[in-house]
Amino acid sequence: MRKKYLLAPGPTPVPESALLAMAQPIIHHRTPQFSEVFRETAELLKYVFQTRQDVLILAASGTGAMEGSVTNLFSPGDEVITVNGGKFGERWTKISEAYGLKAHEIKVEWGKAVDTREVTRLLDANPKIKGVMVQASETSTTAAHPVKEIAELTKGRDCLLIVDGITAVGVFDLSMDDCGIDVLVSGSQKAFMLPPGLAFAALSERAWKFQETAKCPRFYFDFKKERKNLKDNTTAYTPAVSLITGLREALKLIKEEGLENVFKRHDRLARATRAATAALGLKALAPESPSNAATGVFVPEGVDGGKLVKYLRDEVGVTMAGGQDHLKGKILRIAHLGYVDTFDIIIAIASIEMAFNKFGHKVRYGKGVGAAQEILSEGYK
Amino acid sequence: MRKKYLLAPGPTPVPESALLAMAQPIIHHRTPQFSEVFRETAELLKYVFQTRQDVLILAASGTGAMEGSVTNLFSPGDEVITVNGGKFGERWTKISEAYGLKAHEIKVEWGKAVDTREVTRLLDANPKIKGVMVQASETSTTAAHPVKEIAELTKGRDCLLIVDGITAVGVFDLSMDDCGIDVLVSGSQKAFMLPPGLAFAALSERAWKFQETAKCPRFYFDFKKERKNLKDNTTAYTPAVSLITGLREALKLIKEEGLENVFKRHDRLARATRAATAALGLKALAPESPSNAATGVFVPEGVDGGKLVKYLRDEVGVTMAGGQDHLKGKILRIAHLGYVDTFDIIIAIASIEMAFNKFGHKVRYGKGVGAAQEILSEGYK
Repeated sequence: MRKKYLLAPGPTPVPESALLAMAQPIIHHRTPQFSEVFRETAELLKYVFQTRQDVLILAASGTGAMEGSVTNLFSPGDEVITVNGGKFGERWTKISEAYGLKAHEIKVEWGKAVDTREVTRLLDANPKIKGVMVQASETSTTAAHPVKEIAELTKGRDCLLIVDGITAVGVFDLSMDDCGIDVLVSGSQKAFMLPPGLAFAALSERAWKFQETAKCPRFYFDFKKERKNLKDNTTAYTPAVSLITGLREALKLIKEEGLENVFKRHDRLARATRAATAALGLKALAPESPSNAATGVFVPEGVDGGKLVKYLRDEVGVTMAGGQDHLKGKILRIAHLGYVDTFDIIIAIASIEMAFNKFGHKVRYGKGVGAAQEILSEGYK
Repeated sequence: MRKKYLLAPGPTPVPESALLAMAQPIIHHRTPQFSEVFRETAELLKYVFQTRQDVLILAASGTGAMEGSVTNLFSPGDEVITVNGGKFGERWTKISEAYGLKAHEIKVEWGKAVDTREVTRLLDANPKIKGVMVQASETSTTAAHPVKEIAELTKGRDCLLIVDGITAVGVFDLSMDDCGIDVLVSGSQKAFMLPPGLAFAALSERAWKFQETAKCPRFYFDFKKERKNLKDNTTAYTPAVSLITGLREALKLIKEEGLENVFKRHDRLARATRAATAALGLKALAPESPSNAATGVFVPEGVDGGKLVKYLRDEVGVTMAGGQDHLKGKILRIAHLGYVDTFDIIIAIASIEMAFNKFGHKVRYGKGVGAAQEILSEGYK
């Protein structure tokens, strides 16, 4: 018998109440019964997105909502800024180019946050730029970009701020309306504590204005059609009924805990993880601007990161993530978003200590765990 | 206490083994554990699609696979034939036009099958036509189109046959390879006995050739990228893990029953439903070319179809479908695809008899049920 633990930055663990809701016999989607589930879910989503705007629910991965954000707001030839500080930032550029936009790409070293002066410089030099696309939390590097500061730059211009909040919404404070974010997208398998399969997108009034004249072709991801259907408590195409039913349960948990407390919990878990990895002498991948969604650290010299992740998963039963692209085999990403609490962090750190000793990188047992405990104990009276 | 029964043409009931598989704790998608689930699922899908080709698995509704079939195979300006014999046929036209194709639309009266002579005439008159798009089973009218005959027309030309098999694959024999279908798409919430959220697409060698030069923009629905990832037992973007885990269980049930027997069961249930509704004096919507997925009948004069569907669902607990667009309130659609057996048809017909009497349309109890039983009894030794 070996118990399994999931501590990767998506999919994240699913609470039992959501799992059981999804195991209920399926109901038809064009019924008052499902409309009521949908209505309640859509309302709770606005709470988590911190917006008065509608939050569209799409049957897709998060990338679908990213694509829709491009095709529903822009036309071929439009100029945009894309912030490429990792695997997902790169995706903004690729989507933009696939639809004929001209992307001014800001390349950011993996692990760093974008320098807002560079955004200002590009905006000033290219007054035709109509959008800035950025990750609030770049999952591949565990760095956070300064979205609030960028919003200050786009607010006064005829330029939208489009934010991939896939590992940010429900993790840390990113109030769409208060910040001035024009499009905020997310996905079900992150802080929403659900299996993958749902993507979300919310648009500001200003973004809806852009939508009216945007000429990129689109059909399945048609935000205007989705908004119209949302008013009738449904979606344009067949909704992923079971996932939405599970989502309602997960959102109820978030509402019950209170968003403020959810943010505090994530912050506590993130700080504990950082303290623990530092105590173990591990170099952080994003020390200056770490995201509260996950913590990326370089594995010690002489340890093969790929083998480490595999050993932790297959032998110890603890699934974390390794690195992507040029960071493959070099880093370990410990996620702490979603249905995660104190003892998940204890498990993560304890398992790393044990694996390190197995791999010949000697560390004192309890050293990282102790450092985590110091911070985790804040969460108790 | 009121037991609930789902007899709508999607979503269809989900077998208990699939529901329970989806209620398991979520596993990470980039692991050998999930790769094995994916590999087995992809292999079983080929069996149900009756093809040697890969079957792509997308996190989307069926419409997403329809859109991908257009954008991955054609370029703006390309000429195609779309067969519009209902709500879903109309969608082929809308998608084609959204991406700048020139659609020669064949309008077919709702409930009828397309006349293949009309397809021939258009193909002969417009030699530049590169594709024919049609439904194998038009869910909105419960009519089947003559796909095999159309395949005979497209085979010898430089023209693809693209088939929406959303309520056809796994319902009746539609061997992709043997017929010469170039693209076959389907969705999880039909004969695949799963909740909505997955779309499927399989392409012939010829279709993959078209893909090489197709210039429509696309990103999320990128078939080439999906095929590449499929070889590694994964998807291009985060797969809908729980749905795929459930799909494996549902496909195992199909494999165990045997596709031949699955087709026979659907045929028996369909014939029983037709015999029962005829015995009740109900006029069929698609008498000449009925689909084995569902049976559409006109509600008797003086009965409000909308109220009938609502009464059956809310008071009796049996969910069937009404009509769409101009057939709204006029028809009843009784589905018999997926996880459906003898006594589901008995329930459907008995509940209709009871509702009719309540609505003042007097019928002799057991008249329709008896007619169904005559045929349903064929299924037993």
